[in-house]
Amino acid sequence: MTDTTVTGTAPKGTALKATRHNHDQESILLVAVDVFNRHGYDATSMGVLAENLGITKSAIYHHVPSKEYLLQLALDRALGGLEAILDDPLAETGPAVDRLMFVLRSATGVLTDQLPFVTLLLRLRGNTELERAALERRRAFNKVIAELVDEARADGAIRSDIDPRTTTRLLFGMIGSIVDWYRPDGPVSANAVADDVVAVAFGGVRAR
Amino acid sequence: MTDTTVTGTAPKGTALKATRHNHDQESILLVAVDVFNRHGYDATSMGVLAENLGITKSAIYHHVPSKEYLLQLALDRALGGLEAILDDPLAETGPAVDRLMFVLRSATGVLTDQLPFVTLLLRLRGNTELERAALERRRAFNKVIAELVDEARADGAIRSDIDPRTTTRLLFGMIGSIVDWYRPDGPVSANAVADDVVAVAFGGVRAR
Repeated sequence: MTDTTVTGTAPKGTALKATRHNHDQESILLVAVDVFNRHGYDATSMGVLAENLGITKSAIYHHVPSKEYLLQLALDRALGGLEAILDDPLAETGPAVDRLMFVLRSATGVLTDQLPFVTLLLRLRGNTELERAALERRRAFNKVIAELVDEARADGAIRSDIDPRTTTRLLFGMIGSIVDWYRPDGPVSANAVADDVVAVAFGGVRAR
Repeated sequence: MTDTTVTGTAPKGTALKATRHNHDQESILLVAVDVFNRHGYDATSMGVLAENLGITKSAIYHHVPSKEYLLQLALDRALGGLEAILDDPLAETGPAVDRLMFVLRSATGVLTDQLPFVTLLLRLRGNTELERAALERRRAFNKVIAELVDEARADGAIRSDIDPRTTTRLLFGMIGSIVDWYRPDGPVSANAVADDVVAVAFGGVRAR
């Protein structure tokens, strides 16, 4: 999650305009993901993509072999970012509740850094083999978090008066909703969002 | 929110099969909302609806004037349920934090009771005048919650170290996500979900 391109914070609008007629695979990917998110992957043809890029379809094929390839690249970026969290030593050692906090905070960071890619991932319907494979990777990531919740609960660090499945789902729901409202150029920084997610998830909103 | 039909808990599959060829407006509405949620409102034609109902298009028109009318009925059910919460004396008197808890708990109840209708509402894109009017009502409801958060924060009952906009959005995100995983016939009861939402939202998941 550290060495992938941070697209969310780049001045996207300007960058895209400047390279509108001089695309490489990366700039095509950024525009494609944006169009997928606005119109839906299924509803986006290579013709629609070409229109949005201001180039011909054959110019796209010069850089990428297919629409599906763009989807794969985009999903790999989102999933790669999330999976990298689990390889961090902070996700693998120490009390379960600390690892859980680290993973949730880092996942929030991937959401805000890789916003369009994670948005695409979270809206997948699983219509094709490729989409189902991505959903499988997403489920594997979620399963690790669910296990951390269970472990932290067994340690007595997570309250036991809440159904553990519901606990996990409310945590996912809270984090996943970020793609609906977070804007890189908005008034709340990505760091502040990550702080607030951890604060609300673990401590709740009530003052004490 | 008490006298509307509780569709979420009815044995839908069987009920629908039994009346497949003997529909009234209510049973057509239930099937329509289900089809809208699975395929998208825009992608659902009256022909597709007829197929799913096992009746002819003209038989549908005998009960409802248009697809848009079904959407209006469905959205009214979701929004009517949410708006009714705000008319309850418990939403209008007492400390802001208590009113906030009451509204969040009740909104969770509307989500689980009116699951397909709220799912439709939460996935609206605002493509038509009718959809935009519904989104406007949804925003008005959300605004009341945001104001309750502000008021409870000013009272010192909501922690002040979290951005108030983020607080409100995380609360919405947590509740809205319920439509993605709650199933009326699942292992967790609607009441337990509402309890857990309030517990996590206000107290967080950490044991103390």
